[in-house]
This record gives sequence, C-alpha cells and structure tokens, in this order.
Amino acid sequence: VTNVLVESNPEDRQTTALPLGFRAEVGSAGLRSGGAHDVAVVVSDRPCASAGMFTRSRFAGPSVTLSRPRAASGTARAFVVVAGNANVATGPQGEHDASELCALAAASGGVAVAEQLVASTGVIGRRYPMDRLRGWFSGLRPGDPDRWRADATGVARAIMTTDLVAKTAVRTVGPARIVGLAKGVGMIEPDMATMLAFVLTDAAVTPPVLDRLWRRAVDETFNCLSVDTDTSTSDTAVVLANGAAGPVPEAELAVALREVCLDLTLQLARDGEGATKLITVTVHTARDRGQARRVAKSIVNSPLVKTAVHGADPNWGRVAMAIGKCADDHDIHPEHVVIRFGHLEAYPDIPGPEGLAELAGIMARDHVDIDVELGAGDAEATTYGCDLSDGYVRINADYTT
Amino acid sequence: VTNVLVESNPEDRQTTALPLGFRAEVGSAGLRSGGAHDVAVVVSDRPCASAGMFTRSRFAGPSVTLSRPRAASGTARAFVVVAGNANVATGPQGEHDASELCALAAASGGVAVAEQLVASTGVIGRRYPMDRLRGWFSGLRPGDPDRWRADATGVARAIMTTDLVAKTAVRTVGPARIVGLAKGVGMIEPDMATMLAFVLTDAAVTPPVLDRLWRRAVDETFNCLSVDTDTSTSDTAVVLANGAAGPVPEAELAVALREVCLDLTLQLARDGEGATKLITVTVHTARDRGQARRVAKSIVNSPLVKTAVHGADPNWGRVAMAIGKCADDHDIHPEHVVIRFGHLEAYPDIPGPEGLAELAGIMARDHVDIDVELGAGDAEATTYGCDLSDGYVRINADYTT
Repeated sequence: VTNVLVESNPEDRQTTALPLGFRAEVGSAGLRSGGAHDVAVVVSDRPCASAGMFTRSRFAGPSVTLSRPRAASGTARAFVVVAGNANVATGPQGEHDASELCALAAASGGVAVAEQLVASTGVIGRRYPMDRLRGWFSGLRPGDPDRWRADATGVARAIMTTDLVAKTAVRTVGPARIVGLAKGVGMIEPDMATMLAFVLTDAAVTPPVLDRLWRRAVDETFNCLSVDTDTSTSDTAVVLANGAAGPVPEAELAVALREVCLDLTLQLARDGEGATKLITVTVHTARDRGQARRVAKSIVNSPLVKTAVHGADPNWGRVAMAIGKCADDHDIHPEHVVIRFGHLEAYPDIPGPEGLAELAGIMARDHVDIDVELGAGDAEATTYGCDLSDGYVRINADYTT
Repeated sequence: VTNVLVESNPEDRQTTALPLGFRAEVGSAGLRSGGAHDVAVVVSDRPCASAGMFTRSRFAGPSVTLSRPRAASGTARAFVVVAGNANVATGPQGEHDASELCALAAASGGVAVAEQLVASTGVIGRRYPMDRLRGWFSGLRPGDPDRWRADATGVARAIMTTDLVAKTAVRTVGPARIVGLAKGVGMIEPDMATMLAFVLTDAAVTPPVLDRLWRRAVDETFNCLSVDTDTSTSDTAVVLANGAAGPVPEAELAVALREVCLDLTLQLARDGEGATKLITVTVHTARDRGQARRVAKSIVNSPLVKTAVHGADPNWGRVAMAIGKCADDHDIHPEHVVIRFGHLEAYPDIPGPEGLAELAGIMARDHVDIDVELGAGDAEATTYGCDLSDGYVRINADYTT
C-alpha cells in the first residue's frame, strides 16, 4: 500500500502566470522588516464565481468575519492580503481598520467593496499601521500599465511570514488553468481551511458547483494537514473562477482542484516551522472516514511520534500509543491493528535488530510514510504533517521579541 | 484571583517513611543501564481497601489489564513496578510474562496473586528480560530482616525513567499518614490517571468510600495535567489503605488525598521532559466544568503558548488563539473574555510597551500563571503543564537509540 504524492515539478513552478483575466500587484507597506513585500492584491477583470472556507476559531478576526459572507455570496472577485499583522483581538478599532483596508483595495482594483475579500496573517493583538497602508494604496490605480504585473509566485512570496519558500501549484483542464498559492507554516491545524490559500481559475463554473467542489477538495487536503495542532484565528481558503477560458468538464475540474490543494498541502507540511521531514499517515480499514482521520491525526500530531521521526529513532511503539489515545474508539483492538513504515511491518510482526536498523534507515528519509490498518471496516484517510525539531522551539520561543 | 499551590516542603520530603504496616523493597534487575534501580515491590502486612484508575488507551498493556479488575475488587494490597520496559504491544507472550511477574512478586511479598497489582513503564514493544526478573525475585522472601527497608523516596527513585527528581508527597490526618509517590514525565496527558502514581495510607476506610474519594482527587489533579498531549499506554494511579492507624474523618481524608495528588501533579509538571517552567491555567466563569477544563487544556497544551512561555515572549495573543480553538463552544465570545498573566491583564485591555515589558518579566518566572475569564457561567477549572523546550525535542528524538 503506497501513497502517490504528486508535488509540483520545477517546470510547473516556472509557469505561475495568473489565469486569463486576473491581475495582481504586490509591494511593501513597511509591516515587515527589511523592505520585504507584505501586501498583495489580486483582482479579476470580470465577475467571478467564488467559494471560501474559513477558520472556526472563536477568536476569528475581522478579516475572516468580513470575508466569510462575501465569499459565500458566490460573487467575490478580488482579495487583498496583509502579512506581518493578523489584525485579531483588536476590538472594534480592528473591525473599522479592516473595512477601510477593503475600501482602499476595492478602489485600487476597480471593484465594488462587496466583491472584495481580505485576509491577514501575523502577530495577534496589534493594530494595523493604517497610515502606511493608506500610503501604499494611494499610488495604485486599476489601469496603471506599470503595475499589476505580479504572478502567483510573487503573490505567494509577498504573503509569507515564517515560510521559507513560496508555495504555488498549477494544473490545466482543457483550455483552463488552475493556479493556487498558499502560505503557512505555524499555528497550522486547519479546522475548516488552512492559513491563507487562494486558487484562481479561468474555468467557467457556477457558484453552487464551485462551492461543492471546493468543500470536498479542502476537506481531503488542507483539513488533513497539521504542523503543530494550533488552529489559526485567520485561516482562509478561497477559490475564484472567472470563466475567461470557458466551461470545462466538472469531473476534471474537481480532480484538478483537489490536486492543486494537495500539492499546496504537501508544500505547507514540508515547510512546517522547523520541519526537516514530511510525514504522511494513511489509516486503512477504519469503521468510517471520521475514525480514519481521527487516528491518522492522532499519529501525525503526536509530539513523541514527531520527535522520533526527527531523530530517525525506530521507536514504532509510539505509533501504537497514538492509536491507543483514541480511547473512545471501542472497535479498535490491538490484535487487529497492523503498523507499517513504508513497506516495513513494525507491528504485530515486531522487527528484530536487523529490522530495527532498516526501520531507522526508513525514518532517516526526508519523507516518512506511516501506514496503519485498523481492521474495523473499509474506510481510509490520509493526514499530512512534519517532524518536531529544536528549530520549531527556537522560532516560536522568540517570535515577537 | 490567585491559585494557592502548596508543594511539599523539604522537611516533608525527608519523612517519606511508609505508613504503618507497609514495607517496600527496591533493586536492580538490569533493565536500566548503569545498575540503576528498576524494580520496586510494596506490600501491606494486612488486608487493604484499594482503588485504582487506569489509562483508557486502546493499546493498554497487560500490566493495566491485569491490575484493573484487581484494584476494582477493593482488596488489592501489594504492587510491583518495573521501570525501563512498558511491556506493551507484546502480544500473548507479554500477557504471560506479566502474569508470571505478578506470581513472582506475590510469592516474594507473601500475598495472594489476586491481591497483587503490577505497573510497568518504559519502551513499548519489547519483551521483559524474564530471566533477569526471575533472578532478582529468587532472593527475596517475605520475612527477610535485611530487605524490605525502602521508603517512599526509594520507591519513587526506583521507578524513574526520564524523571530528573523522585516525586513524593506526605500529609497527615490525625494518627494516619498519607504517603504518595509518582513518576512522569513524558507521554503525559493522563486520561483517567497519570503514569504511575501510588498513594499509601494507614487510615481505615472502606473500599467504596476510598473509591469515591480517589476518583474525585484524581479528576481534579492528575487528570488536569499535560506535559505533551500524549496519553500513555500504562497510566496507573492506585491508592491502598490498610487501616493500621484506625479511622479518620472522611472529609479530612478527602482533603489530604487531594493535596497529595495535587502536590505530585505539580512535581510531575515541573519535571516534564525538557521543562524549565511550571504553567498553571485557571479558567473562570465557564458554562460548566467541562468547558472550563477544555479551554484550560487547550491553552496548557498549545505548543505556541508553551514555546512563548519558554522564551518569555510576551505573545499573549497565542492564549486568545488557544481559546478560539474550542470552536464548538459557541457561547465563548471574544468581547466577554479576559486574559491575565498573574495579575496583569493582557486582553481586552491590551498592554502598551511598558505593559509588554512587565509581561515579559512575568513570563520569565519559573511559574507562569495564566488566568482566563469566559463570561459564560460560574464554573472553573485549573490545568497544570510546562513549557516546550529544545530539551524535550532532544530527549525524544534519541530515546531508544
């Protein structure tokens, strides 16, 4: 049993021009140090079908509460992203600032405020530097021939925080292109969506169909990702489809959307804060998909499994522990469970000294695949994560100071 | 609002003689390197009332499955602990080995097998070295005047794994003494009990009363502890009461039991793997105790809160994030929430530069107390944990190799 994981090849990543009819501008409003880009605006030159999924956090910020109904209307066509400040837990002033930011972006892009989404990422509990943001937008006009030249990689780079690489993914369906971009990489256990993922396509699709395809794709990809079990207050995953390339078969669009989301999910996991390895966990023969995902999440989130993978310590018993933590799953019985690392069985056929050496070798690879059979049914699920390193601790012990 | 946390003072710890009528022997059977003690046996010379709580893990080992019904019978009077090997995920052979170990211990202690409990801690998935254990028990007889001289500290030391300090706690109620001992300190998010805690008393109490007092004490102490969110396969918390000191008022016994358990819980949190600081989180004005504990656990378990405490980074927004993660608690509204560190309010009255400097100072202390009001009711709960350091990663990346 293996997982076929298709990540973008370098050739794909060189061709991250936006789909037909989209344009983007990026720049620095001074929220991040050293002049790094920290603002991105993306606009479609025609109406769009839109769908979005957002964090379920009780501390969701005004970016989320403003964007959620607009994405749900099915007709959003532009988004602005600010990196370096989450604008969360900032009270009524924060709501006011988010509304003003939307108005600035909508005017600069030439769209109605109701068509404008906003997303924000960075430190919680600080106000936006509104003067700087006003200054940046004051020079941006819809028709400026010298601006609006960013591609998806440029946008992905502008919205990075602790990300080490810009994350994009591209697929084609007939004449249409599907271009995705995302950022992570800490506070990542998406509950309805991950920390800022955007997919643009020039395929023609109605809002209800797009919404259905999007929910399914997000559920099997971003919602199966965890870097550190901490759910962001700002998670946002939005798709915009402007139809510039005409209609495409729905089934093919569904596959391409899922592939783009999975590709971004794998890139997010690999670039998890401090990560040195990708971990994938597939649970088979579960009672239902919920049980499969619960067990797979328990394994991919266990700090003891993550540190064992980090140290290439063939301590497979920690996977048994993490399965056992699902204490309310009374139909999980150790005598029916099988644990494998790649193709090597670790339980119940416990490896001897040679097997443990082979297991250590498998765990030293840059992708560790853990495969579990529960023997409780025929459902399965795969989760995506990374190892836990001293790098994670260092990054997060000193984040704001 | 403050928590009064009474940890054992050094004087208490010097008087860890066992209660009347109990005796203990410790030694090395060669499971741990360097001749460290790794076996402990404790026996009452007369019948006991007993109560126990055990892990709910689906991968619970034979130590747990053997001991659970015996403790529930209310008449257990002896236990044996092996450190360095958990005897978990070892199949039918592991069950056979656990039974033989119980028989060896019962014979050496002079009790019936049905009165004998067993607990085990260490690596998962390896068989006991039965020859060595047989050898160690072959020299131990119930009446040997040169043996059976260990006190609670000696037992606590013999059952350590990654613990840095032996953990004991003592209280008195009238003529009776309550002596507790425990070990941690990784794979600690007890679900029904923590990794190996034992309390002995010479108070006279019936099994049903003891069971009731014990469940309440464990629920408010060990079950509110988390070092790393990973629930052990071997969690065991047992109390034995042999009545040698006669009856005591039930209410006083309840308080003393809870204090002993809380004392051990705080010691376990402080000695969490890699820990440099104790974190306590109290959630007030919750809808019910379940909500209070869920939110307090979400905060004390958040790796981003734990790393911020480690680095004394005054990033209070992560506490807001961790509250927000309780996404199904629809009666949590940010506008009703108050977050404090000690007496310093961080939200909604957000600190300025001076306040942040003060907050950094509070977070640099060796005990960081986080206090949250939800404004949803009048229930409260306190949880106990520790910071997340590079030390945790190093200990667990290299555990078995």
